[in-house]
Amino acid sequence: MNTDTKTAISASPMSTAIILAAGRGTRMKSERPKVMHPLAGQPMLRYLIDNAAEVFDRIVVVAGPDMADVAALAAPHAVVVQHDRLGTGHAARQAEAAFGTGDVAVLYGDNPLITPGTMRALLARRRSDDTGLALLAMEPADPARYGRVVTRDGLVQRIVEWADATPAERGIGLCNAGVLCADAADFGRWLAEIDNNNAQGEYYLGDVVARAVAEGRKVRAVVAPEDELRGINSRAELAQAEACVQARLRLAAMAGGTTLVAPDTVFLCADTVFEPDTVIHPHVVFGPGVHVRRGTEIHAFSHIEGATIGPDAQIGPYARLRPGTDVGTGARVGNFVELKATTLGAGAKANHLTYLGNATVGAAANIGAGTITCNYDGVFKHRTEIGAGSFIGSDSVLVAPVRLGKGVITAAGSVITHDVPDDALAIGRARQADKVGYARVFRQRLKNRKEQG
Amino acid sequence: MNTDTKTAISASPMSTAIILAAGRGTRMKSERPKVMHPLAGQPMLRYLIDNAAEVFDRIVVVAGPDMADVAALAAPHAVVVQHDRLGTGHAARQAEAAFGTGDVAVLYGDNPLITPGTMRALLARRRSDDTGLALLAMEPADPARYGRVVTRDGLVQRIVEWADATPAERGIGLCNAGVLCADAADFGRWLAEIDNNNAQGEYYLGDVVARAVAEGRKVRAVVAPEDELRGINSRAELAQAEACVQARLRLAAMAGGTTLVAPDTVFLCADTVFEPDTVIHPHVVFGPGVHVRRGTEIHAFSHIEGATIGPDAQIGPYARLRPGTDVGTGARVGNFVELKATTLGAGAKANHLTYLGNATVGAAANIGAGTITCNYDGVFKHRTEIGAGSFIGSDSVLVAPVRLGKGVITAAGSVITHDVPDDALAIGRARQADKVGYARVFRQRLKNRKEQG
Amino acid sequence: MNTDTKTAISASPMSTAIILAAGRGTRMKSERPKVMHPLAGQPMLRYLIDNAAEVFDRIVVVAGPDMADVAALAAPHAVVVQHDRLGTGHAARQAEAAFGTGDVAVLYGDNPLITPGTMRALLARRRSDDTGLALLAMEPADPARYGRVVTRDGLVQRIVEWADATPAERGIGLCNAGVLCADAADFGRWLAEIDNNNAQGEYYLGDVVARAVAEGRKVRAVVAPEDELRGINSRAELAQAEACVQARLRLAAMAGGTTLVAPDTVFLCADTVFEPDTVIHPHVVFGPGVHVRRGTEIHAFSHIEGATIGPDAQIGPYARLRPGTDVGTGARVGNFVELKATTLGAGAKANHLTYLGNATVGAAANIGAGTITCNYDGVFKHRTEIGAGSFIGSDSVLVAPVRLGKGVITAAGSVITHDVPDDALAIGRARQADKVGYARVFRQRLKNRKEQG
Repeated sequence: MNTDTKTAISASPMSTAIILAAGRGTRMKSERPKVMHPLAGQPMLRYLIDNAAEVFDRIVVVAGPDMADVAALAAPHAVVVQHDRLGTGHAARQAEAAFGTGDVAVLYGDNPLITPGTMRALLARRRSDDTGLALLAMEPADPARYGRVVTRDGLVQRIVEWADATPAERGIGLCNAGVLCADAADFGRWLAEIDNNNAQGEYYLGDVVARAVAEGRKVRAVVAPEDELRGINSRAELAQAEACVQARLRLAAMAGGTTLVAPDTVFLCADTVFEPDTVIHPHVVFGPGVHVRRGTEIHAFSHIEGATIGPDAQIGPYARLRPGTDVGTGARVGNFVELKATTLGAGAKANHLTYLGNATVGAAANIGAGTITCNYDGVFKHRTEIGAGSFIGSDSVLVAPVRLGKGVITAAGSVITHDVPDDALAIGRARQADKVGYARVFRQRLKNRKEQG
Repeated sequence: MNTDTKTAISASPMSTAIILAAGRGTRMKSERPKVMHPLAGQPMLRYLIDNAAEVFDRIVVVAGPDMADVAALAAPHAVVVQHDRLGTGHAARQAEAAFGTGDVAVLYGDNPLITPGTMRALLARRRSDDTGLALLAMEPADPARYGRVVTRDGLVQRIVEWADATPAERGIGLCNAGVLCADAADFGRWLAEIDNNNAQGEYYLGDVVARAVAEGRKVRAVVAPEDELRGINSRAELAQAEACVQARLRLAAMAGGTTLVAPDTVFLCADTVFEPDTVIHPHVVFGPGVHVRRGTEIHAFSHIEGATIGPDAQIGPYARLRPGTDVGTGARVGNFVELKATTLGAGAKANHLTYLGNATVGAAANIGAGTITCNYDGVFKHRTEIGAGSFIGSDSVLVAPVRLGKGVITAAGSVITHDVPDDALAIGRARQADKVGYARVFRQRLKNRKEQG
Repeated sequence: MNTDTKTAISASPMSTAIILAAGRGTRMKSERPKVMHPLAGQPMLRYLIDNAAEVFDRIVVVAGPDMADVAALAAPHAVVVQHDRLGTGHAARQAEAAFGTGDVAVLYGDNPLITPGTMRALLARRRSDDTGLALLAMEPADPARYGRVVTRDGLVQRIVEWADATPAERGIGLCNAGVLCADAADFGRWLAEIDNNNAQGEYYLGDVVARAVAEGRKVRAVVAPEDELRGINSRAELAQAEACVQARLRLAAMAGGTTLVAPDTVFLCADTVFEPDTVIHPHVVFGPGVHVRRGTEIHAFSHIEGATIGPDAQIGPYARLRPGTDVGTGARVGNFVELKATTLGAGAKANHLTYLGNATVGAAANIGAGTITCNYDGVFKHRTEIGAGSFIGSDSVLVAPVRLGKGVITAAGSVITHDVPDDALAIGRARQADKVGYARVFRQRLKNRKEQG
């Protein structure tokens, strides 16, 4: 879209997007409403709402009954409930009271990959020339059984369902995507005119095209990429849409200066932020809320969500960063290490088999292998603070709430139950004793017992 | 297959499948017989035997000498040994004494993707009309150097090897898959007539087609999907077949109501069972014997075998469930946690860096980070029992055999060596002592030593 | 290349490869020189230098200013610096003083997939017949906007840039790869003749083709596979090249007798060595310096670098082997286990949640779950030695330097701070005490506190 078009839209009358989200999606075999199934970590309906909000003044979601989660997600946008499932035309009509003035577009909750650019193009087409109705069409590689769009002299004559199409019509490459835009008054009138005299006994939204043509109005199609207009009716189609979203996110990351050694094995969220000169190794999964700063490297088999990392940090392999994690400049999180709601200071290291929860670790501290913060007493979560330059010995247990000063050392294998002053050595473990020859005795006993069966 | 055909088969005379499994598979560069290489966790021969057993009354496996593992897998079906490697015709003839009456089909151990439906279609074709010999053919996207099937008026005239084919014959798209079916008496007679007058000096099974045609018998082809008829002669072809099996399993899982966020990164076993509304995140590996109940979510980097999970459980990321694991309703297994022969009660949690082996954990128990069951004394495995509602402190070691009652708490860092009564607190750790200023002294000593080199 | 050609080359005059590596690669959005970005674990320039060294007598790298790392990698080969970025012709001319006698070929640092065989073919073509200039061409599936090679009677007439090409020329499938080879004296003369009268104001290396033709010299093209001639200008193209290198490595591994259950999920290094009858499960990453011996199986989610493993070892899942690891015959490394600079003796086992660093473990020793070597004191690394047949109890901490004799047992939960003689039992932990009913009291207190808010 060029700036001129944008300006034209913002100077225009009201625009309203109706999002049809009432379908149960029986082919999903799920108790969850279809539009609540996630893509790249967020419900598919979220994409439609966010993208439509960039283009339309108002949004109305048509939900099914008993879909409290859909209504909650849609808030603060308006929600109307379609109680009877009588087809897409019926669904759109439930929102009629909310049409207002200006233009109304109908989008589909299970068609979430449509971009703001395409929505703008649809709205602009409706408002250009003397277009009475604008619709989205596509030219898929395999037109399969999509309805075909019959045009003449650039104007849509009619939509013909595949089942009803002649061989010549089936040869048409332009297919109907179902998305429409018209003036609210026109649209309301056409919706009222369509009937359910068909095999399914349903009111089809697509029938408004025939109404518009019958009134002598001009109907025009906007051709959009097939990828944007793909519907999601099954888990297999959900997986295809996920792959599509991931491919977009990966290309954007690489274009921004991030090396993805093996893009197909890295999973991103819609909100993942990478700065340039970051390197993501194979087999890494990002959840929501991640910001990776310049020069940081994420090694294989890492699982990151809700974390800010770097610059110049080294993460993984097998690092799990959970929400509330902040890894400082040049810090290092190694294998089989979990951080949750934890700040790791600049240059600090937690390299092996460690769990840090609700902790603050000072700069250049070294967290030994097997360190565990005991942050939960069954009811409350407590904080652990470790001062800068501290050296936590291997297999230390830090029983929170507890505060270790700067430069503290804990002896390997210690259980730390109270605060430690700066530069102190804290030790909490038993002394070693050796029972000479006893290992041999023990083995002999086991052997005897084994022989006795 | 429709029901009529099934009925026709079950009312028919005997049927016998001969599975040729004697090949060493030199291109595999393996000491293991080719048919013992696994697909989706089980030897490829297993698929043939199981699928053939759905269609044929009797199965005979032709093994090579020194293939005890093949014979063991084939049991209780008959096994004959081909001592000399003189070609596929010779191999089939080794089983002649077992042909019995009725129909005989020859299948290939390194051709394991053929479905029962295709086997049934072959047998049905042999028994329909006046067919003397039925064979499987395919129409591959790239016919390459497959032998071509020359037909006239729907009848097979002959099989022509690629090397011997005229340009016109090479233009034929119908290729020979090598799989045959004929009446036992006919088949035995034709096998006895083929010779080894060819460059390799081998008896080719395919030559029976010429014998049948020479006798004026009708030979008919059944066209089956290329994917089912792909032979496995190298590790690269093994990998392709694995991909094919995995793709089938993934599609079936999704059709049943399981979300596979990234299907290509999830590896299933032939026997993996998912209930609807389960979610499998990227990078998950399933071994044999897994049942995932409704509402359960398996997070990334999990490795699951021999486990029953859920309903409504949360597993991973980085959870390893080994055989004998039973995870209860709403239970939670977190990162870097291994369960083996362990029952985790409803609502129980083991969230971080834990090993539970030969253990029973009661409902709603909380297993702290770093908990380890010490279940092995070098000879015997012992059990650990943890009562409902217990709270195992972080970094506890439970030395089995040991029984903790209901509502027990263990102090963080404790080694538990004897049974604990209900509602007791068990503690087994040293007290913390602090040596003030000693950390500074220790660092100074290290520094001095370093400077001294 | 056949042996005759090789012989012909070695009997020939000098040959020099000029590698252009001065580009900053702005589309990479990186502070690192483009040619230093890695493929399969080593900088792309490394591939060119190593492969060119197999074919050419001398190598000269043209680096940009401030590219010390490029010069370091190129050593001991000659490096010249291109101070001004005035195009590829200008870059090649910087190396003119190093052309010497004989033949000079120009290669591109961001074109690293070209094989020694193709380089040999280029050099051989230059030296055959009366060829004055030889160049590499390709026939890409999509010729896109590549420059086209116009030929007549097998001789190159000219290179035409896509922008300047007529529709007929754009229809040509033969595309210019930019790689050239000529006699040093000719090449130097032609380079001196080209100018920068073009839109970019740059000296284009490709213009020497016109000079050669103008002198009536014969220019011939060698057609090489598109995959070898793919340039890397962006992170997305880097990822494609990585996929190409990985595919080559995987096919070679499978051809050698290694099962890759899911090749696309396994990442190899250029130097990874597998013996036959090794099995690599899905999701495994290999870094540099790995040798996997016969009969060894690497399970899912393992991360291996700098390690020699087997024969007949079992590794993973979730095993991390770091540089300096040697895993003996039939040994076993299990889940969430990290080995660094550690030798694990024949039949030894470290199966769960363990860190062994700078350690030697004797044959048949059993390392219990949760064992940690405390090998680092903040300044020095110390060694741990564990004798053959020892049994390290779960959750043991071994504070290095420390030496455990043969047949030693350590009690679960012990901290071992001094040496242990053969066959001794070492114990270093507190005794368990139970406070009856105290867990109930504790829970009540937490509950009260919670109610108080």
